[in-house]
Amino acid sequence: MRVRGIHHLGLAVADLDEAIETWGRLFGAQVEHRDSLESQGVDAVSLLVGESRIELLAPTGEDTPVGRFLARRGPGIHHVALDATDVEGAIEELAASGVHVIDETPRRGLFGLEVAFVHPDAVHGVLTEVVSSG
Amino acid sequence: MRVRGIHHLGLAVADLDEAIETWGRLFGAQVEHRDSLESQGVDAVSLLVGESRIELLAPTGEDTPVGRFLARRGPGIHHVALDATDVEGAIEELAASGVHVIDETPRRGLFGLEVAFVHPDAVHGVLTEVVSSG
Repeated sequence: MRVRGIHHLGLAVADLDEAIETWGRLFGAQVEHRDSLESQGVDAVSLLVGESRIELLAPTGEDTPVGRFLARRGPGIHHVALDATDVEGAIEELAASGVHVIDETPRRGLFGLEVAFVHPDAVHGVLTEVVSSG
Repeated sequence: MRVRGIHHLGLAVADLDEAIETWGRLFGAQVEHRDSLESQGVDAVSLLVGESRIELLAPTGEDTPVGRFLARRGPGIHHVALDATDVEGAIEELAASGVHVIDETPRRGLFGLEVAFVHPDAVHGVLTEVVSSG
């Protein structure tokens, strides 16, 4: 798979507006987009921090993946997303080499992007998203 | 503070060579440098993944910051480092605004870089390093 680099770093937060304020005040981060995915139980904001991107994720309820993450570990870094040129090809390549890919086909993620998640057990505990920025 | 973007993402791993192999095989990552900091109890490898950088951190013993992190949470994402133009200025600015900066003055981190760590409580649970790439 050809990886262009880190597309974004996903952070689990309890409160989006508080986190936006903190990242803006400390590091000059600017809001790029807001979105929500009811099917994933998440409200999200992407921030630009210099030339990089941070994705803030707040759960819409306790019984959601990010809600359970917060309950178990508290707020913090949730996942890293790698920018691949071809998500479908990346999934096939990973699955063919025996890697546990959570999404067997690409799905629409936040901000309309095509994404797939790789199981953290395959990447030494790192929840890794493959995303194509187009 | 002016932030250029994410300088690297730091991952805590149990075994450097296994992690290098995984990141190379799955995502085409290439070893950039190896280093160790006895004072921090850590052996490290920086990897280039496309245009981004991943820092793998393995503890030299159990009673080290990364050793305790592994014992408590298992392997996974440990910190994010932001590329600031001026680490000393960044520390002063953060401290003046009441942010808990772990390093009161910049110290030499891995790979000879000038770094400072901000306490995760100040960044919603995210251990954040400020680093100057020069």
